[in-house]
Amino acid sequence: MKIILDAMGGDNAPDAVVRGALEAAKEFGVQIVLVGRGADILASMKAQGWDTLPDGVELANAEDVVDMHCDPAAVVKQHPNSSLVLGARMLAQGGGDAFISAGNTGALLTAATLLVKRIRGIRRAAFSPVLPTKDGHAILIDAGANAECTPEFLLQFGCMGSFYAQKALGIESPRVGLLNNGAEDTKGDPLHREAHQLLKRAAEQGTIHFVGNVEARDVPFGAADVIVADGFSGNVLLKTMEGTAMFMSDMMKQMFYRNPLTMLGALLCKKGINGIRKTMDYRETGGSIVIGISRPVIKAHGSSDDAAIRGAIRQAIRAVESGFCEEIRANIGQMILPREEEHAE
Amino acid sequence: MKIILDAMGGDNAPDAVVRGALEAAKEFGVQIVLVGRGADILASMKAQGWDTLPDGVELANAEDVVDMHCDPAAVVKQHPNSSLVLGARMLAQGGGDAFISAGNTGALLTAATLLVKRIRGIRRAAFSPVLPTKDGHAILIDAGANAECTPEFLLQFGCMGSFYAQKALGIESPRVGLLNNGAEDTKGDPLHREAHQLLKRAAEQGTIHFVGNVEARDVPFGAADVIVADGFSGNVLLKTMEGTAMFMSDMMKQMFYRNPLTMLGALLCKKGINGIRKTMDYRETGGSIVIGISRPVIKAHGSSDDAAIRGAIRQAIRAVESGFCEEIRANIGQMILPREEEHAE
Repeated sequence: MKIILDAMGGDNAPDAVVRGALEAAKEFGVQIVLVGRGADILASMKAQGWDTLPDGVELANAEDVVDMHCDPAAVVKQHPNSSLVLGARMLAQGGGDAFISAGNTGALLTAATLLVKRIRGIRRAAFSPVLPTKDGHAILIDAGANAECTPEFLLQFGCMGSFYAQKALGIESPRVGLLNNGAEDTKGDPLHREAHQLLKRAAEQGTIHFVGNVEARDVPFGAADVIVADGFSGNVLLKTMEGTAMFMSDMMKQMFYRNPLTMLGALLCKKGINGIRKTMDYRETGGSIVIGISRPVIKAHGSSDDAAIRGAIRQAIRAVESGFCEEIRANIGQMILPREEEHAE
Repeated sequence: MKIILDAMGGDNAPDAVVRGALEAAKEFGVQIVLVGRGADILASMKAQGWDTLPDGVELANAEDVVDMHCDPAAVVKQHPNSSLVLGARMLAQGGGDAFISAGNTGALLTAATLLVKRIRGIRRAAFSPVLPTKDGHAILIDAGANAECTPEFLLQFGCMGSFYAQKALGIESPRVGLLNNGAEDTKGDPLHREAHQLLKRAAEQGTIHFVGNVEARDVPFGAADVIVADGFSGNVLLKTMEGTAMFMSDMMKQMFYRNPLTMLGALLCKKGINGIRKTMDYRETGGSIVIGISRPVIKAHGSSDDAAIRGAIRQAIRAVESGFCEEIRANIGQMILPREEEHAE
C-alpha cells in the first residue's frame, strides 16, 4: 500500500509532516510518497537527524505551495505544480492508494473533486470528521463541504457515512441520525423534513439503520454513530464542540494552576486529566475523510503535529483496506432519486 | 412592577416555580402573579411552609395546563384556560409588565405572538438565550424560534439583539457577529451572504456595531456580544454547547470520583470547580428572552429549579426597566427593507 502525503500542508509543515510520515512508514510498514519542495523536505529531514530517505519513503518534487489564502475554486488551474494539486493528481493516476493533506481545506476538496473525481452517481463529496462521544466515536457527515444541500445530498451522506462507519470503523449496523432542531419526525425546515423521509425510506429498504432526528445536545452522548448534517449546521456542530471543549479545558487549567494546593490536586487526578485530554484530542481520531471521492482522501487538521499526521496515515490505511469506496459504488442505486422526484424538490 | 409567572410550566412545577417566585418577591420587592391551578399552588405553598399568600403575590386561577405534547400552533384555541395562554393574555391586557414560563417552548412563542403580538414591523420573534463566554456573556439570537429565515429576519435579529444587549445587559456598543461557516465576508449560503451585507449596511448607518462573520469555535471566547443566527444553526450552536459542557462535566466528575486520592484532589480544587459550575450554569444567566414581542416574555429552562426561576424573574425585571422594547420600536425604520428589495430576496 502506498500513501501520498502533502508535505507542505498545515501550520507545522514540512517538519511535522516529515516526522509523522517517517515514523508511520516504520510503524505501519506502508510505502509513503512525500510531495513537496524537495530541498525543504530534505533539509527538514536532515535537521531531524535523517540523512537519507528510508526504505519505503519516496519524494515527489512539487515547487509550488498552496497557502490558506489561495482561492479554492481556482487552485487546480492556478497552482498545477503545488504539492496539494500534484498529490491529488498522483492519486487519480494510480500513483498511490490514498492522499492526505493538512493544507487548505477548500482547495483539497476542489482538487479531489476535479482530479480524483466523485464516485459516479454521488452528487457531492462531504467532509467527515470523527467526533468523540461517551462510549467511543461518531462520524459527522457533512462538516462543511456543502453549505447548501438538497434532500438527496443528505440521503447520500447518510448512506455513505453508514458504509464508512461499517467498513472502516467496524461498527456492525451503524445508527444513522439526522441532525435536526428537535427529535420529532416533523421538526426542521423543508430540507430536513424531506431528508428525514428519504432516510426513513432507505431504512425501510434495508440500506441503512436510521434512528431518526438527533438533537445536537445528544451527539456527545452517543445518540447515533453517523450524524447526517447539511454542511452549514454540521460545521456549526463541529466548531461549537471544539470551541466549548477548548473553553472548558482552559477553565480546568486555571482551576488546577490556581495555587500549590490545586496543583497537588492536579497531580492526584493526573490519570483522569489524561483521559479527558485523550478523549477530546483530534490527534487520536485522525482527520476528516472526504467521503464520496473515488479513492480515500483525508484532510488532516491544519495544526497537525507529527502524532496527528501519524493518526491520519493510520486512518488512511484503514480506509484503503476497508474498501468503503467500492462499497459505496456497489450500492449507488439505492442512493439516487428518480429524476422526477429530484425535480420536485 | 408586576411579573406574571406560569406556575404550571416546567419539569419541577409548581413547587420550584412557587418557591422561586416567593423568594424573588421578597428579595427584589416586585409584585408577582402566579397563574395556574389555585388548589395545586396553595397546596405546594403549604407543603413548603407558607400558609397564606405573602404581600405582593397574587394568584390567578387557570384550570388547564399545556404540556410538552400540546401542538404549539393550536394552543391558544385548544387551551384558552391554560396557565400559559392566560398568562400571555394577562400581559397583553396590561395585567403585568412581563411574562415568564418554563413550559412548552413552541406554545409560549405562539401565545406571545398571537396575544401579546410582535412589535409593529418586526417580521419574526426570536429566542435569545445568554451564553457563557471567557470574559462574561454573549446573547444568541435566534436560538430556534425560526428554522427558516430570510436575510431581513437576520438583519432584524442583529438590531434587536444589539438594543437588548445595550439596554438590558449594559454593554455600551455591543459587537454584533453573524454565525457563519467561515470568517471571510463571502462565506456561507446565499441567506448568510445577503444577511452579511444587510448587517454591514446597518453598521455603516450607525445602527449597530457589526464585527462580521463569527465562527462557532470562537463564540465561547467572546468573538461577539450578540451572535446572530438563523434559528436552525443557532439551535445547533446552543445545544452543542450544552451537550459538550455536560459531556465534559461528566468526565470531570469521573476524574474526581475515581478514588480517595482524586477526591482529595477535588477538595483542593473546590473553588475552581465551583467557578466552572457557575460559569456554565444556566440558572445564573436566566432564561431565553423572546425578542421582538411588544412586551418582555421569557422562556425559563424546562428543568428550572427555584434558583433558575429567581434568575428569570431578575432578568424580567431588568428587561422591563431597560425599556428595550421601546428602543426597538423607536428604531424600527432602520430594520425594515424597502419592499422591492424584500421581493428581490
